[in-house]
Amino acid sequence: MKLEPQWIVGFVDGEGCFHVGISKHADMKAGYQVLPEFTVVQHERDVQALHALKAFFGCGVVRSNHGNRMAYRVRGREHLLERIIPFFEEHKLKTKKRVDFQKFRKIVRMMREDRHLTPEGIEEIRRIKNQMDRGQSR
Amino acid sequence: MKLEPQWIVGFVDGEGCFHVGISKHADMKAGYQVLPEFTVVQHERDVQALHALKAFFGCGVVRSNHGNRMAYRVRGREHLLERIIPFFEEHKLKTKKRVDFQKFRKIVRMMREDRHLTPEGIEEIRRIKNQMDRGQSR
Repeated sequence: MKLEPQWIVGFVDGEGCFHVGISKHADMKAGYQVLPEFTVVQHERDVQALHALKAFFGCGVVRSNHGNRMAYRVRGREHLLERIIPFFEEHKLKTKKRVDFQKFRKIVRMMREDRHLTPEGIEEIRRIKNQMDRGQSR
Repeated sequence: MKLEPQWIVGFVDGEGCFHVGISKHADMKAGYQVLPEFTVVQHERDVQALHALKAFFGCGVVRSNHGNRMAYRVRGREHLLERIIPFFEEHKLKTKKRVDFQKFRKIVRMMREDRHLTPEGIEEIRRIKNQMDRGQSR
């Protein structure tokens, strides 16, 4: 399955998710772990489309999700910074998911500067994350 | 919002639905009404994308769906035959939704030949429709 950039944008506008998890983690300097991830979930019958995304971006994994759902997932910070984020900067999302992407990008860039290792940084990341989740209803 | 064909294909691969309703209807010759429809559902925050689809195809309506969801919907048989079906013949869906589209197209073409007005036609349409629904899990 060969994917064109605009198909990917349309598919991700529909099915993609830019998510930032924040969880308590005693080993981390600021007491919290920040886990950004880009995911696309599909019914297992369309796992081919997820493998095609993985091949296109050259990173990430395809794993089973809940029940008969599969997910393409990118968590690696370098992969997010060097592959996922530049792609969606060049090929802009058309739905409000673009706003989530921009906030996601901001958080990943803050992490590049190690700001998630300070309490102030965690507070700022949490504030941005809360703005992202507000728009999500699924 | 200007849409490119491949964006539409990707978006519909994710969010689109080709559905055929069959309901009892005393006024119809064969006792049943067949209602094919192409729909794309979105959260109301992204109603703009639905209006952009309507403008692109030059047919259909944007209506509220359940709760805070909106739907772009095309039911008109001529619009399906002349605009929606030719578009997805030229720009092929990449997920298994392509199989649903092909069965949907077959049913709409049977209706063009008035085969839904005979009991045999209704039976055949029901058989094809059941194959479509089997793949749907949402």
